[in-house]
Amino acid sequence: MKQLERLPGIGPRSAERIAFHLLRTEPEDAFALADAVRDVKERLRHCTRCFNLTDTDPCGICSDPKRDASQVVVVEQPKDVLALEGTGVVRGVYHVLMGHIAPLEGVEPSDLTIEALLARVRSGTVREVVLATNPTVEGDGTALHLHSLLTPMKVQVTRLARGLAVGSQVEYATRAMLEAAILGRTAM
Amino acid sequence: MKQLERLPGIGPRSAERIAFHLLRTEPEDAFALADAVRDVKERLRHCTRCFNLTDTDPCGICSDPKRDASQVVVVEQPKDVLALEGTGVVRGVYHVLMGHIAPLEGVEPSDLTIEALLARVRSGTVREVVLATNPTVEGDGTALHLHSLLTPMKVQVTRLARGLAVGSQVEYATRAMLEAAILGRTAM
Repeated sequence: MKQLERLPGIGPRSAERIAFHLLRTEPEDAFALADAVRDVKERLRHCTRCFNLTDTDPCGICSDPKRDASQVVVVEQPKDVLALEGTGVVRGVYHVLMGHIAPLEGVEPSDLTIEALLARVRSGTVREVVLATNPTVEGDGTALHLHSLLTPMKVQVTRLARGLAVGSQVEYATRAMLEAAILGRTAM
Repeated sequence: MKQLERLPGIGPRSAERIAFHLLRTEPEDAFALADAVRDVKERLRHCTRCFNLTDTDPCGICSDPKRDASQVVVVEQPKDVLALEGTGVVRGVYHVLMGHIAPLEGVEPSDLTIEALLARVRSGTVREVVLATNPTVEGDGTALHLHSLLTPMKVQVTRLARGLAVGSQVEYATRAMLEAAILGRTAM
């Protein structure tokens, strides 16, 4: 119970409930959990190409011959890869920056995997870099920094569309969202 | 108090508080409120050009010589005009549909101000129609219907950008939002 309580979002009551559940469960189920916890530390690592979390190197996406290696989608963190993969529309591969530039928090460009991204582009196999950083101050700042580094490199640089959220209403949209939606309006 | 209680969001307690406030207030303040309430019914009408709510005809936006009358932003309801005007980036004029097509609720195209919109475009002064209906099932359906009517009319038809909301995070975006953001990605 003491070990379980150290996990985020698990208090003494939840820890107790989980502990008694484990007592009742089949040994192989409990061992599967124990092995998975061990594996996180022993087998999960960062892909040396895209820095996504993986148990093989290169990761399953980087080594998939059906993916378009000439399109690199740049995200801030491994969670974003999961979110984008959920859509099923990304045909390219990824590059995980491992954060965003935030000078006030002491995160400089050199703390991210930017050098590795530039090396991938320099290798000549990349046709398009899709900047999929968050549409926040830090994400936009990071995207602008990458754009300035990539511009001289003869690669197409795009970024995720921003505007109205699908299913939302004009009436309740924030000013910033409406502004992005008008200025970014597209031909039908 | 009985009259006040009939307003939305005002219960017996609020009605009492407002009534006693009116008793204490200067006569001219109370009369100003009374006149405003009367004016809503007596003077507010729909602009005969754009169908926005107005107390002059044509409305202040339609009659403003500084607005670009060749760009018509089509919205579902007068509230949407207020929201879009809040951004300060719309240089054109508006056309209020007074709803969206919703066959299940008995709202047919002929119930909206679509015929008047087509007449405005036919007059030849409109260069661009910006479809700013809500990014919902009904709003999208209405936009598609308008698009099919406008396509033969030699006018540019655009729609509001959709994608990630400004200030949101990739990690928490819905699948539909991420899909729109990837497919609609723009050159930087």
